[in-house]
Amino acid sequence: MLASLVLTVRTEHEAVVPRNLGWASHALFLRLLAERDAGLAGELHDGMAPRPFTCSSLVGGAPQGPMLRLAPGAQAWLRFTGLTAPVSRHLLAIAANPPAEVELDGQVLQVCAATVDAQAHPWAASDGYRELCERILHAPGPVPRRVRLEFASPTTFHTRNAAGQRVNIPLPLPHLVFGSLLDRWQAFSPVAVDPDLRQYAQEMVVLSRCSVRTRTLAFKEGGSETGFVGEAVFSTLNADRYWGRVLQVLAAYALYAGVGAKTTMGMGQAMRMLEPCAGTDQ
Amino acid sequence: MLASLVLTVRTEHEAVVPRNLGWASHALFLRLLAERDAGLAGELHDGMAPRPFTCSSLVGGAPQGPMLRLAPGAQAWLRFTGLTAPVSRHLLAIAANPPAEVELDGQVLQVCAATVDAQAHPWAASDGYRELCERILHAPGPVPRRVRLEFASPTTFHTRNAAGQRVNIPLPLPHLVFGSLLDRWQAFSPVAVDPDLRQYAQEMVVLSRCSVRTRTLAFKEGGSETGFVGEAVFSTLNADRYWGRVLQVLAAYALYAGVGAKTTMGMGQAMRMLEPCAGTDQ
Repeated sequence: MLASLVLTVRTEHEAVVPRNLGWASHALFLRLLAERDAGLAGELHDGMAPRPFTCSSLVGGAPQGPMLRLAPGAQAWLRFTGLTAPVSRHLLAIAANPPAEVELDGQVLQVCAATVDAQAHPWAASDGYRELCERILHAPGPVPRRVRLEFASPTTFHTRNAAGQRVNIPLPLPHLVFGSLLDRWQAFSPVAVDPDLRQYAQEMVVLSRCSVRTRTLAFKEGGSETGFVGEAVFSTLNADRYWGRVLQVLAAYALYAGVGAKTTMGMGQAMRMLEPCAGTDQ
Repeated sequence: MLASLVLTVRTEHEAVVPRNLGWASHALFLRLLAERDAGLAGELHDGMAPRPFTCSSLVGGAPQGPMLRLAPGAQAWLRFTGLTAPVSRHLLAIAANPPAEVELDGQVLQVCAATVDAQAHPWAASDGYRELCERILHAPGPVPRRVRLEFASPTTFHTRNAAGQRVNIPLPLPHLVFGSLLDRWQAFSPVAVDPDLRQYAQEMVVLSRCSVRTRTLAFKEGGSETGFVGEAVFSTLNADRYWGRVLQVLAAYALYAGVGAKTTMGMGQAMRMLEPCAGTDQ
């Protein structure tokens, strides 16, 4: 069971907050969950990766250097996603009965709307693993050879180099993007995907178009992370029906699972786009 | 011996030409060389990679879909670089005594200026391998930990995937960028660089910032190539004096050598930038 809950919020008085509120959004998510299910919130707080949820930063407001200015009455939004039934059920319940206000980094924000309805907000949704699979794996028509993803918040991959040092790769390399999605799919989905998808992504999926730039996020404790935002189109070198559709399934899953590192702290918010890629070619 | 000859040209009458004239610029380069040294031009025409020269496409004019419109009297430019003494000497001679006009894809263009003087054009230059090395390797002051490159024309890397298929990687991965520069340096420079630079680039150089987007070039014979344009900043994970300076040497060499595939056909035109990277962060 999958859910993406969007909370639309506003302040009564002007507020100036850090641009990256991913950590505060993460804390809010755990507080909201703890009010309903302290046991689950505790498990998620202490759990090891991969985590069955993601948290966005606050989207909206006017950037002012490293800060974000929220004008009185103007709306902004944030979202939480659930990758398992226990988490997603709580998100659906919050959508049905949202709190009147939430606190983010000491700022009290009025909740204007809460939804998991894709018609109500482009980043809201709910789905089932089996339903998502069925819909895409058994879709009529030819298998698309291309997958387009939008990376809306900084996305990066933590890997180790040959010398064993942790390195950041802030680029949409096909095997890293689909490898990350596969890991989360395999961790949480009741429907397994052939693990050779990773090898397929490495050998047969290429980046055919992209328009990306890096952004560095400051975190509360003084650290920072650099990731890329923008869009990327991946193409398959062959027209294999199974792998072609599995790539589409994983790309659709990105809306819930996020991509890459620190998706519980605002990074890696991504979405499959169905229209052709615009503005990346001349 | 290294040279980058910039030819500034204009048409008397309006002309509409293909946007990618790299192949025509390549043909012009060989014709100009053949007029002076038929033997050398023949060797370069038939030679195997890596080639001791690069050719840009025509820069300027107004894009109109896949074409470029040159207004009467408006200036555009193209350049040729030489990576060896025989080629560079001819480029210097052309700069001293340029032809009155050149022909590019059937268009006759007046040559308004020809220069290898970096003061006269940002993409013009001449240098020696030893001089370039001396200047950078023995520069006073701390070793910079960052290298910034601008990729002005589509840049890509042809590699083979694990399945042995040729794939294109249109992304500024540190080991591909510096590996490409190292290959050309080792092929043409009288001063060798430690070949472990490739391993250093793989293990200790990371992409710390970038702003890139792909562009697809159409070639005359109907093929196309996709590469990235934009800028990238690479950082070293340690502060090794030798490797840090060698990276700067190779980055400076990019102006002459180009980066990646098809640098004799207009791709991979790149330049080291000394100012801080702008516009890639928020």
